[in-house]
Amino acid sequence: MSNVFVLGHKNPDTDSICSAISYAYLKNQLGMDAEPIRLGDVNNETAFALQKFGFDQPRLVERVSEEVSQVILVDHNERQQSAVDIADVQVIEVVDHHRIANFETTDPLYFRAEPVGCTTTILLKLFKENAVEVPANIAGLMLSAIISDSLLFKSPTCTEQDVQAARELAEMAGVDAAEYGLAMLKAGADLSNKTLEDLMSLDSKEFEAGGHRFEVAQVNAIDVAEVTSRQKEIEVLMNEKIARKGLDLFVFVVTDILNNDSTAIVLGSRSGIIEGAFKSSVVDNRVLLPGVVSRKKQIIPVITEALS
Amino acid sequence: MSNVFVLGHKNPDTDSICSAISYAYLKNQLGMDAEPIRLGDVNNETAFALQKFGFDQPRLVERVSEEVSQVILVDHNERQQSAVDIADVQVIEVVDHHRIANFETTDPLYFRAEPVGCTTTILLKLFKENAVEVPANIAGLMLSAIISDSLLFKSPTCTEQDVQAARELAEMAGVDAAEYGLAMLKAGADLSNKTLEDLMSLDSKEFEAGGHRFEVAQVNAIDVAEVTSRQKEIEVLMNEKIARKGLDLFVFVVTDILNNDSTAIVLGSRSGIIEGAFKSSVVDNRVLLPGVVSRKKQIIPVITEALS
Ligand SMILES: [Mn+2]
Ligand SMILES: [Mn+2]
Repeated sequence: MSNVFVLGHKNPDTDSICSAISYAYLKNQLGMDAEPIRLGDVNNETAFALQKFGFDQPRLVERVSEEVSQVILVDHNERQQSAVDIADVQVIEVVDHHRIANFETTDPLYFRAEPVGCTTTILLKLFKENAVEVPANIAGLMLSAIISDSLLFKSPTCTEQDVQAARELAEMAGVDAAEYGLAMLKAGADLSNKTLEDLMSLDSKEFEAGGHRFEVAQVNAIDVAEVTSRQKEIEVLMNEKIARKGLDLFVFVVTDILNNDSTAIVLGSRSGIIEGAFKSSVVDNRVLLPGVVSRKKQIIPVITEALS
Repeated sequence: MSNVFVLGHKNPDTDSICSAISYAYLKNQLGMDAEPIRLGDVNNETAFALQKFGFDQPRLVERVSEEVSQVILVDHNERQQSAVDIADVQVIEVVDHHRIANFETTDPLYFRAEPVGCTTTILLKLFKENAVEVPANIAGLMLSAIISDSLLFKSPTCTEQDVQAARELAEMAGVDAAEYGLAMLKAGADLSNKTLEDLMSLDSKEFEAGGHRFEVAQVNAIDVAEVTSRQKEIEVLMNEKIARKGLDLFVFVVTDILNNDSTAIVLGSRSGIIEGAFKSSVVDNRVLLPGVVSRKKQIIPVITEALS
């Protein structure tokens, strides 16, 4: 059994899974007995990346404190996005690229957050700072994470540092970033084997602002209408989740990965803020968000501001 | 007027002042219009270091939001230790070596915390990562901060990285670390020009744990009895502060910098926890803490644990 778990957020995306594997590898090279784990199912996109570069899924662990007393968080820091029993273990490191909130420690720790598009862009720096070589298959995973988080460099969260890191990683991995990346995104946008319940929870994150709890789910799609045509069924599931979790707002975002727009369905007692916040008309609980693809940069700050 | 302020914590210590000056210098070299400021009076030790290396005190600014909209925090992250109007500006970077708590942002930022003994140990890495040379006088300030935070490398917070950084910085600054360091610490332990009110607030930090508010003040001394002989007067001032700020616990620590022990005076409704927490007898509101010199590593976690 390992001493330290390395974990990404709940409803893991490609960055969370690939960062956990890559950073655990680096820590092992530096002499720490670390194991990557996951807090939920791996999505189609991530499965495509793992398969391509020859990795198994990390082990699913629900309660981390039953096996370890120390953990490293990657790709998140907010406690409600982490393991349910995160309060029962010591967080010894964080490597992340999100806002910082709902995070508190008793002791000093290594906390490395940078405003870049992807956790693995920071991890590449850590490999270099520690003079550890990135193996080709790990480089492939790290590249996959950047492509995923940046929607092939099109998201406004994507920085020059991410583009440069991806360039280096693609060369190390021996793949063509554009070609491989589009194939990976398409695998992720293939919703044919997903139920509506799956779509609702696949990549859904909970936040707090101004005393209100809100959740934003996001799915990538090639054909947005395929999803929105089932809006009535989706709303039933959304209302169930709002009631069960006591949410004040639930936003379900469908992002068109070819045209880089999003359509959102909004429900909850605070859904009235959406129209003003995004300066777009909400018709029949639905709103078009032109040019919006990044939950972190284009959706969460806007809602947080409006609720505060 | 500058665009960005770089600031350390309230009741600034040598690390807070020297880190603000050094990091503002680095940011200026990188093209940012940054100015170091201070939130309070400079202590005798810091004044000695500034004088030695030819720097003026940074400008005192009470309300940062009246002049800038963005700030960089060094040597702290908890909002109650920062500018009173910290909520009204955007924190764009943090470089720190303390626990993380009471810190929250709306947007991603650069947050670099490492479990080392001093902020300037991390700053030296940032100079190197950005390929900016450290001028001799800035190196002197950065060395002063490490000597101050580590009590000349004797504090348990001091890591091998701090010792190594101090070695490099002493060479750059052209000083003998041991000789200069002792002179600087002695200048700081000279309490002859200080009132008891000064001692109470010179280096005092407020914390929260388990819904309780507590404050820990610390002074360095060569002759501890010189301070503790005035315990009755000190207690009057402590009780005033407890009443004024609504504290549940106030701990006044006098640290013997030659023998590396501390004596503490403890007051407040929760002072009963001290005996059990430190496994030492409290007699007449006073407790001896053998080998304790670090508030951060040997006092705050113990009190936090006991209050939680
Ligand atoms: Mn990410
Ligand atoms: Mn410090």
